[in-house]
Amino acid sequence: MAYIELENKMPGIVGLLTQFKKTAKPLTELAQVLLRGDSTMSAGERELIAALVSYRNECQFCMRSHGATASHLLNGNKELVKQVQQDFRSAPVSKKMKALLNIAAKVQKSGREVSEKDVSAARKEGATDQEIHDTVLIAAAFCLYNRYVDGLGTFAPEDEAVYDEHGEELAKDGYLQFN
Amino acid sequence: MAYIELENKMPGIVGLLTQFKKTAKPLTELAQVLLRGDSTMSAGERELIAALVSYRNECQFCMRSHGATASHLLNGNKELVKQVQQDFRSAPVSKKMKALLNIAAKVQKSGREVSEKDVSAARKEGATDQEIHDTVLIAAAFCLYNRYVDGLGTFAPEDEAVYDEHGEELAKDGYLQFN
Repeated sequence: MAYIELENKMPGIVGLLTQFKKTAKPLTELAQVLLRGDSTMSAGERELIAALVSYRNECQFCMRSHGATASHLLNGNKELVKQVQQDFRSAPVSKKMKALLNIAAKVQKSGREVSEKDVSAARKEGATDQEIHDTVLIAAAFCLYNRYVDGLGTFAPEDEAVYDEHGEELAKDGYLQFN
Repeated sequence: MAYIELENKMPGIVGLLTQFKKTAKPLTELAQVLLRGDSTMSAGERELIAALVSYRNECQFCMRSHGATASHLLNGNKELVKQVQQDFRSAPVSKKMKALLNIAAKVQKSGREVSEKDVSAARKEGATDQEIHDTVLIAAAFCLYNRYVDGLGTFAPEDEAVYDEHGEELAKDGYLQFN
């Protein structure tokens, strides 16, 4: 049960977005533009960043939801998502993606952890300024979403099937459905 | 100089919002609804939460900008802002405000730091569910903004007058001017 009274029984951020509509609008629009908007990064790659940051913030609802979403967008490759969350440096993703995940992992700790060197390393692997920008902002955004979900003590179901279904829905229809 | 190339010379988040318009829209709308929307908390009280979280995230641009904004909204009381940032427990604010600042300070570390007890303590001092919700979300949002500003290595001017002017502008006209 959440720390504040919710008029619905929906878990995680879904219950909050459903009840608090004025803030739900910009919160869902931000997720939509960052994770589904036009980009040279695939939606699956962007969801991997979300899944990694949520994992490091130990946000059960988000790490499992976005892990499932990433998996649905990456040919059902659940193992890859798990590898990225547990140790992205040894995961079978491109060097560019590893350099971007390194930036995201630093942002999770603090914006001040990211160095010129981290950014140069990503650029050297072919990352564009827009991709570096989006990586920082996706990681920063999940530092918000994770805190919103856990700071209000929302409910995170145990059942894996819930996340698989929610992830499929997010992979297919994006974020504006909660607007 | 920021880690990525900006086509403007504006400091902190202002340069980023000016260049990256698609994400600027939800980012500024979120700030506007949280910090200037209808609320039983004053805009000054909400800016104090933003100033505290930014201070704890050591984000120079944000802690000084929102510190100045809070001061402009609180009869020019710069000393109060400084006291809240340095030790809110001994600052001359209401017991309710202290309990809300305690929740914000926990959210700054992690959403998981907030306990049922922290929330009960705020409720005991008269905080409503909406106020508790907004406090958590303002604190979480500044964990995003601070990381966006520092993760991309944006420029933070030294000159206090810059923040004073920017704070006055934010106090007077809010956030949609950067939309």
